[in-house]
Amino acid sequence: MPTNQQIHLVSRPSGEALASNFKLIVSETPALQDGQVLVRHHFLSLDPYMRGRMNDAKSYTAPQALNEVMGGGTVGEVVESRNPKFAVGDKVVGMGGWQQYSVVDANQLGALRKVDTTLIPLSAYLGAVGMPGVTAWYGLVKIIEPKAGETMVVSAATGAVGSAFAALSKARGCRTVGIAGGPEKCRYAVDELGFDVCIDYKLHHDAASLSKALKDACPDGVDGYFENVGGMVLDAVLLCMNAFGRIAVCGMIAGYDGAPLPLSHPALILTNRLKVQGFIVSEHMEVWPEALKELGTLVATGKLKPRESIAQGLEAAPEAFLGLLKGKNFGKQLVKLA
Amino acid sequence: MPTNQQIHLVSRPSGEALASNFKLIVSETPALQDGQVLVRHHFLSLDPYMRGRMNDAKSYTAPQALNEVMGGGTVGEVVESRNPKFAVGDKVVGMGGWQQYSVVDANQLGALRKVDTTLIPLSAYLGAVGMPGVTAWYGLVKIIEPKAGETMVVSAATGAVGSAFAALSKARGCRTVGIAGGPEKCRYAVDELGFDVCIDYKLHHDAASLSKALKDACPDGVDGYFENVGGMVLDAVLLCMNAFGRIAVCGMIAGYDGAPLPLSHPALILTNRLKVQGFIVSEHMEVWPEALKELGTLVATGKLKPRESIAQGLEAAPEAFLGLLKGKNFGKQLVKLA
Repeated sequence: MPTNQQIHLVSRPSGEALASNFKLIVSETPALQDGQVLVRHHFLSLDPYMRGRMNDAKSYTAPQALNEVMGGGTVGEVVESRNPKFAVGDKVVGMGGWQQYSVVDANQLGALRKVDTTLIPLSAYLGAVGMPGVTAWYGLVKIIEPKAGETMVVSAATGAVGSAFAALSKARGCRTVGIAGGPEKCRYAVDELGFDVCIDYKLHHDAASLSKALKDACPDGVDGYFENVGGMVLDAVLLCMNAFGRIAVCGMIAGYDGAPLPLSHPALILTNRLKVQGFIVSEHMEVWPEALKELGTLVATGKLKPRESIAQGLEAAPEAFLGLLKGKNFGKQLVKLA
Repeated sequence: MPTNQQIHLVSRPSGEALASNFKLIVSETPALQDGQVLVRHHFLSLDPYMRGRMNDAKSYTAPQALNEVMGGGTVGEVVESRNPKFAVGDKVVGMGGWQQYSVVDANQLGALRKVDTTLIPLSAYLGAVGMPGVTAWYGLVKIIEPKAGETMVVSAATGAVGSAFAALSKARGCRTVGIAGGPEKCRYAVDELGFDVCIDYKLHHDAASLSKALKDACPDGVDGYFENVGGMVLDAVLLCMNAFGRIAVCGMIAGYDGAPLPLSHPALILTNRLKVQGFIVSEHMEVWPEALKELGTLVATGKLKPRESIAQGLEAAPEAFLGLLKGKNFGKQLVKLA
């Protein structure tokens, strides 16, 4: 039985999340029962939704239980199996949590999925060819419903969702504009991710200023917006939306830690006849096969080359996660566990 | 040629709209050209959208031109005709504006529509069986898409739109809750308009308090909301929305006069996966026949008995309109012109 490092949530944040909300625990993996497999995790995914789960509030995800392993997506390798469908050496993706190993009842539908790493790196199944990629796909394809020639905007442009959004939007013939923090990210968005323009929100101190920059970048206005951050950025984009624009609300990371951030001009929803719709990708499992097929092809053919920020070792996960909430990551935030 | 009183917009409001923005002008109706008819207006409709048109700002309607007759819906009677499709005595609905008579090019598609007043009073074609009724119908049927047993809420509940909304919502088997100002309106909403409950927003000084009253009135939460007012009321309803709720944004009258009213908790759109959609009924002419048929039947069979506030004479129109913006009207606001 290998030793298993785990990170537990031991307290809930009041305001900003802190490293002290987490605790590293060392345990042993239990012996397998029939139908179970033991997975050694290669990568853990860190995602903004985890911040919501740290609170004890009603939200779209159940709160993370205290003094248990933090939940999270993982990719890894089967190292022991008592399930005929999985063999030692199989590469798998699942929800193993913030730990080095997980014991999975592999007969449970959707608990563990074998993946092919011939053309797609294992870690991509946590990003572009995983939940973040499908998130971008659902918001763009099912809520925004873009038409060729329209203008699409996404915030957190160089993140896992934003970079997939760019590839999917460009593939549909749309002008694609990103919003990101800092010149390095903005350069990368244009040079490597295929954005037509990327705006550095850190150069702007209010929504009016950011909105002016957006208007310059979007001479025909904005038809579709994929929202990851909220706050000033949402205010700025709202001012640029065309009539009949669509906004897919996927995240509002700017308000996760503190006081709720208001929306300054909700009347624009009326005057521009906008559709503003929130969604959670895990509630739309029916689209995953179609979305993963397109995303897998984009990655395998080099049209989507998402960047990764990789923290080393489980003990680095809390700081990497807190950095993600502040936009310190650059691309998909992972933790390398093996 | 009869003398024709008209009300012109002579200046634009800065902040609150004032009576001095309007001016009564007396002119003569011009001689008819071929294809034209002269309509004597019986009623002028006063509607919140007119406030937006008084500004010179980009909005969903073109600004009202200065020193011209204020636009507006009218019902009346043909008193002279040089168009074979219209005879003297025909009852008609059109956009005659704030004046006693209008000369209409009746060959222009949609400019003038003959109506049957056997079972439906002429004035109803400006309210329940007109633009406000179709507005309620579109928001409910096409945006909210209610299911029997769900809970629907509408603000400005006793107005022309709200009262039609109640009849349409009840006809679909929904619990229907209104929000209105003052005990008299709330009693009327329940006793005469068929609301299950009506909440007096004037008893509440903040969104939290109003929201608590709404939660009591909606024990199963709110699935659909038809927004006429914005501001504190929208904040309060947002706090009560169920997952996958739908909000049709038709008006934000609370913010028409002054500073934009923010939305306090936009993150609820995400956490409850809401759809919030603005619309303008005049952009959906394709639904009018279906909607008017249902609304006409509801009125003709006595299932929808909308109340009217009737101002007497054209010179009373400005004050009646300013009162409407403050919620002083009780039911559909009309001006009797003949």
